[in-house]
Amino acid sequence: MQGTMLYGPRDVRFEERPDPAIIEPTDAIIRLSATCVCGSDLWPYRGVDPVTQPIPMGHEYVGIVEEVGSAVRNIKPGQFVVGSFFASDNTCEICRAGYQSSCIHRQPGAPTGAQAEYARIPLADGTLVATPGLPPTDLIPSLLAASDVLGTGWFGAVAAEAGPGKTVAVVGDGAVGLLAVLAAKQLGAERIIAMSRHESRQRLAWEFGATDIVTERGDEGAAKIKELTGGLGAHSVVEAVGTQESMMQAIRSTRPGGHVGFVGVLHDVEIPGEEFFFSHVHLHGGPAPVRRFLPELIDLIWSRKINPGKVFDLTMPLEQVAEGYRAMDERRAIKALLRP
Amino acid sequence: MQGTMLYGPRDVRFEERPDPAIIEPTDAIIRLSATCVCGSDLWPYRGVDPVTQPIPMGHEYVGIVEEVGSAVRNIKPGQFVVGSFFASDNTCEICRAGYQSSCIHRQPGAPTGAQAEYARIPLADGTLVATPGLPPTDLIPSLLAASDVLGTGWFGAVAAEAGPGKTVAVVGDGAVGLLAVLAAKQLGAERIIAMSRHESRQRLAWEFGATDIVTERGDEGAAKIKELTGGLGAHSVVEAVGTQESMMQAIRSTRPGGHVGFVGVLHDVEIPGEEFFFSHVHLHGGPAPVRRFLPELIDLIWSRKINPGKVFDLTMPLEQVAEGYRAMDERRAIKALLRP
Repeated sequence: MQGTMLYGPRDVRFEERPDPAIIEPTDAIIRLSATCVCGSDLWPYRGVDPVTQPIPMGHEYVGIVEEVGSAVRNIKPGQFVVGSFFASDNTCEICRAGYQSSCIHRQPGAPTGAQAEYARIPLADGTLVATPGLPPTDLIPSLLAASDVLGTGWFGAVAAEAGPGKTVAVVGDGAVGLLAVLAAKQLGAERIIAMSRHESRQRLAWEFGATDIVTERGDEGAAKIKELTGGLGAHSVVEAVGTQESMMQAIRSTRPGGHVGFVGVLHDVEIPGEEFFFSHVHLHGGPAPVRRFLPELIDLIWSRKINPGKVFDLTMPLEQVAEGYRAMDERRAIKALLRP
Repeated sequence: MQGTMLYGPRDVRFEERPDPAIIEPTDAIIRLSATCVCGSDLWPYRGVDPVTQPIPMGHEYVGIVEEVGSAVRNIKPGQFVVGSFFASDNTCEICRAGYQSSCIHRQPGAPTGAQAEYARIPLADGTLVATPGLPPTDLIPSLLAASDVLGTGWFGAVAAEAGPGKTVAVVGDGAVGLLAVLAAKQLGAERIIAMSRHESRQRLAWEFGATDIVTERGDEGAAKIKELTGGLGAHSVVEAVGTQESMMQAIRSTRPGGHVGFVGVLHDVEIPGEEFFFSHVHLHGGPAPVRRFLPELIDLIWSRKINPGKVFDLTMPLEQVAEGYRAMDERRAIKALLRP
C-alpha cells in the first residue's frame, strides 16, 4: 500500500509501505475512507519533537473494516468505524471511569500510521465504534472530526465543566479550539468567548456558537476576559494550544473556583505553584479519552445536530499529504482532509 | 493588651500592643478564648518567608464578641464565634460559589493578630459564625481546629473528591493532613491511606479513620500507593505539605482520572506540564474557603460526632507563645493551643 512517513523536519514522504496485517488476535485492519493532518503532527514536522528515525504518520481515521483477528467479537468486516489516537480495551477500571486514553493496555491507535490506504487498529473491540450503517458521503468529514479534534475539543469543554449558566472562554482557534466552542454550545453554555485573531477562524467560531470574540492574547487576553465578566473571569476556560503563554492565559482568565480544561499537548510548560495555589482554579486535561464520547458524538453527527466537519477547509487526495502539512504549518488551512 | 509579634527568624515576642478598636463599621472586636500556632506561621518563623518589619501573628481563633461596628447586623456582643484566616463578605458571587477565601473583598482574617488577648475581625457578618450557645470548655479545642486546620483538611478532602467507594491517600501528617484523614472518613471514603513516619501522628491517623499507613516518601511513597491499589493509584489524594516533592508524590500517587486536592501553601513548586498532561489527574486547591464549611463543622463538633481538637497535643498559656513556636518547629508538638 501507499502511506505517509516523516523522515525529519518538513520531510514528509508518501511512499510504498508494507500492507498492514493482523498481528494480535484483537487487531482489525481497516481501509481508510478519510484521514487528516493533526495539529500535533506539526510538532515533529517542525522539529520541536525530535525525529530520530522515519515514522509512520497519522492517527485520525474513519474507514471500513477489512479483516478482524480471531478474538474480535463485536467489530465485523464491512462495518464503517471511527477510532481515535489511542487504542484501549474499554473494559479496565480506568476505561470504565472514562479515561480510555490512559487504559492500562493503552497502545497507539494506529501504529502503522493512518495517513495511508490501510491501517492496523489494536484492541479493535475496545477502540472502534461502528456507525449505524454506511454513512452518506457528506457526513464523512464530521465523523473523521469525531476521531480526534471534536473528541478533544469536547473533552476540553467537559473538563472545563462547560454547561448551563456558564461563561466559557476558549484559548486557541485551531480545529480543537473551534470544536470546543461547538461543544460548549451543545453542553448548554450561556456565553462562549472565542479567543482568535484570524478572520476565517472567527467566522467558524461564530457559526459554532461563539457569543463574543476576543483578539487579545496572553495577559491582555486574560484582562479582556475579566473585563467581559464583571472583573471575575470566566467560569470555564478551555486551553487548546499547549504553550506556557496559553496555559497562563487560561489560568488567568478563570475565576476563583472555575475550571480550566486543557487539551493542547503541553510543551515546555511549568505551572508556577504559588500563583496556581492562589488562583483557586480547577485544572484538568490531558490526552482526550475520545472513546468515552464517540457513541454520543456519532449520534449527534448521524442525526445532523452538529456539523464539526466544517473545520476541514482543505480537501485533497491522500498522495498530496505533504502539501496538507505545508498548508497547516503555514496556517493557510485550519485542517486538511485527505482522501485515499 | 498583650499580643504576639514576629521580629525576624525565630524571634517571637509576646508584648504590649495597642488594644484593637473598630475601624470600619463592618468590624467586630473579639476577646480570644483560644488561639494557636499554624504550620504556615513556621514559614516566616524559619525565615523562608522574609520578615521585613515586625508582624502581628496568629490567624486561628475562637472567642467572644466584645463589640461590633454600626453596620454589623447578625453578629452580636456576647456570642461565641469561630472565624478563619481570611475575612469575606460572604455575599459576592465568588463567596456564593463557595470560594470565600477568594472573596472580592477579601482581607486578612485577623489583621491585628490572633495570638493575642483581643482581635479585630473585618467583615464580621460575613466572616464569623456563632455557635448555638457558649460552648462547654472541652469543645473549645475542636472549635478552634475548625477555624483553620480542620477547615483546611476538609477542603483538601472535598477538593480531592473523597467519598463513598473511594481510596483516599493523604500526603503530610501535620494537623491539616491528619484532619484530612478525619474529613475523608466523614465523607464516606472506603479506604484511607495516611502517609506518615511518626508514631504519635500515625496513632492519631488510625484514630481519625486511617485504614493503612505508608511510611515511604517521594517516589517510593507513590510506588507504595500504586502497589496498594492494584497498580492504579488512589482515586483521591490530599497534598498537605506544599513542597515540590510532596506535590509530585501526590500527583504520582493518583490514578488517571483521579483528584489531587492540595492545601499546603506551595513554596517554590513548579508543576511540570508534560508529566501533568499525561497523568490525567484533576488538580484543585489553594487557601481553604473555611467559611464554606464552618456551619457544618460546628454542627459536627457541637453534636460530638467528631473530635478534631485532638490534634492539639500541647496546651500552654498564651504568654508562652514563643515556646509553642519552638515545639512545633522542632516537631515536638503536632499543634500548640494557646490560652489567653
